[in-house]
This record gives sequence, structure tokens and C-alpha cells, in this order.
Amino acid sequence: MSDTNVAEQTTKNETLQALEYLGEGSTAVQRIFAMIGHARFFSDFTPGDIDMLARNMLIYRAQAGQTIIREGDIDDYMLLIIEGQVEILKHKGPGQGGHQPMTIVGPGATLGEMSMIDGEPRFATCVAAETTTFAALSRDGMVKIILEEPSLGAKILIKLVTLLSARLRQTSQSLLQQLER
Amino acid sequence: MSDTNVAEQTTKNETLQALEYLGEGSTAVQRIFAMIGHARFFSDFTPGDIDMLARNMLIYRAQAGQTIIREGDIDDYMLLIIEGQVEILKHKGPGQGGHQPMTIVGPGATLGEMSMIDGEPRFATCVAAETTTFAALSRDGMVKIILEEPSLGAKILIKLVTLLSARLRQTSQSLLQQLER
Repeated sequence: MSDTNVAEQTTKNETLQALEYLGEGSTAVQRIFAMIGHARFFSDFTPGDIDMLARNMLIYRAQAGQTIIREGDIDDYMLLIIEGQVEILKHKGPGQGGHQPMTIVGPGATLGEMSMIDGEPRFATCVAAETTTFAALSRDGMVKIILEEPSLGAKILIKLVTLLSARLRQTSQSLLQQLER
Repeated sequence: MSDTNVAEQTTKNETLQALEYLGEGSTAVQRIFAMIGHARFFSDFTPGDIDMLARNMLIYRAQAGQTIIREGDIDDYMLLIIEGQVEILKHKGPGQGGHQPMTIVGPGATLGEMSMIDGEPRFATCVAAETTTFAALSRDGMVKIILEEPSLGAKILIKLVTLLSARLRQTSQSLLQQLER
């Protein structure tokens, strides 16, 4: 049973496994601190919060062109870009080949929060547009924080609700404008 | 200072104040229990969780045509529909009068979660389409739950992230379809 679980753990986040692993998040705390200035995600986190969060994240580096998140996959991490640029792409509809570029995001941006929480397939593909370092937080890491540090857990969850609300307002507004044309 | 706060509290959620107040949520626990079957919101809440949540909610009744949430307002409650139907409307763009109906939701649906958490102006207007009873959870109520019952607080926040993720996936998909036309 536990062997199966270990096997699931190691194969679950396959896309991540293909990337260069740089260590646990605590090694990146200095860089995360340096980045706080332009990371809205951390705007009301204390240094203690960031340290605790970083200790539950794993750091990876992707080279330009490497996939970080693959549309349709079922895996369970969100990521915070530390350095670099990531392009977000969406498969074109059935019968059309290729990908449609949606946007490019940089340091401080978070990606993949939806699947980390709800376990649904990835909505879009994320590809490193240049050498990119990022910190990944898995669902297990999130659960651990909620159980061990409930107040930090609540802070992260409130931040996720705020991020998703902002995106939903923006996307709904764009949809309404399209429908009114 | 405290007088000012009381005054703010009473004027803050003006739209709610205009409606018939039916008491605290604990009086509605039986009805909330009866409703659980079709309320996705409560799918993994224990009876104890629902009881605690209900004790932090206020119950209101709106008559057909009464506004429950007004687009552009700054107030801070989310609501859970217990009985009735609520129409969601959006102001038409500048230069066009009136409202555009978006959808109608019924018992078990939640409304207003985005502003409860992020404090931004209401995105749409919600009007009772028939006599509607609902439970309102203010930001203060949410903060109280997070502080006093962190595990329930986390459960509610995870539920909110899940709800918003589902809506964001759906809205993004509709927007992409519109853009591809």
C-alpha cells in the first residue's frame, strides 16, 4: 500500500520530474525575499510566513522551451515564478492543430492554483520562454501548512481566493464585452 | 471610536438592511440540513461544521423584485440561498440603459463570495425572482470562524477556491470560444 503511494507520488507530477531540481524552498528564501517587492502574492506575508511557506516548496529550473504545466494533465502543484518568463498556451479546438498563445508572465506570478486545489485537469499549458526558476507547492504541502500552521494556511487560501476573484472579474468582463459586440 | 464602528457596521451592508431579517443562522439549521442534499457547497461539511457556520450567518427574506446585492456597491457578505430563486443581472455598458440578465440560481447556490473576500465592488446585481430566504456570511463572520475554528475556516476557503476555479474554467472556456469565432 505504501509502496503504491510512493510510486504514485513519484509519477504523479511527471512534468516536474523532467525538470532540473534545485532543492527545497528554504535554499531559495533569499531570492524569494528579494522578489517580494514585485510579488503581489506575498504582499501581506510576514518574513516568518514566507520562511514557513518556502520550507514546504520545491525549487526547479526549466530551460527555454521546457513545459512546466501541460494542459489536460492531472497533477497537483501550483508554482511561483522566481526568475524568468513563462508563456501560457491553450490547445486549439478539435480539428485545428497547434496552440494559441494566451499571455506571458514573469517573476512573482503564480500558476496552476486551480488544479492544486480542485484536482481538475490542467486548463492550459505553461512553457518556459527563457531559463526560469520557480517554487512548486504541491497539494500535500498545502495540506501540511493548513494542519501545522492554520493561520498561514488561511492567509494563503485567502490570497488564492483573491487572485481567482480578480481573474474571474477580468475574464467575465472580457466575455461580456465579446457577447455585446 | 467604537460608536463610529457601530455606525459603519449598520450602514455598511445597506442593501441587506432593507430586507426582512429572520434571525441568526442557528434558527435555520434544520432548513439548511434539509437543503444539504442539493447544496454542493456543503458536500464535505460535517453536521458540526454546518452548525458552527450557521451560527455565524444571518437569515433574511427578500420578496420578488427586491435587490439582494447591487452591482458597484462596496459591502462584504456572501450569501447562500436556502429557498427561492435569484436572478443575476449586469448593467449594460455606458450609453446603454437597463440591465442584461445573466442567469438564475436557486437553493444551494452561493453568491457574492468574491467581494466578501477581496472587498472590491460588486460585479453584478442579484434580485429575488420570487420570495427568497438566504443566509448571509459577512467578512467579520468569516474572520471569526478562521480565528476560532481554523479547520472549518480552511474548509470554507478551500470550497470558495474550488467554486471560483470552476467558474473561472467555465468563463475562460466561453471567452476562448467567442474569440475563436
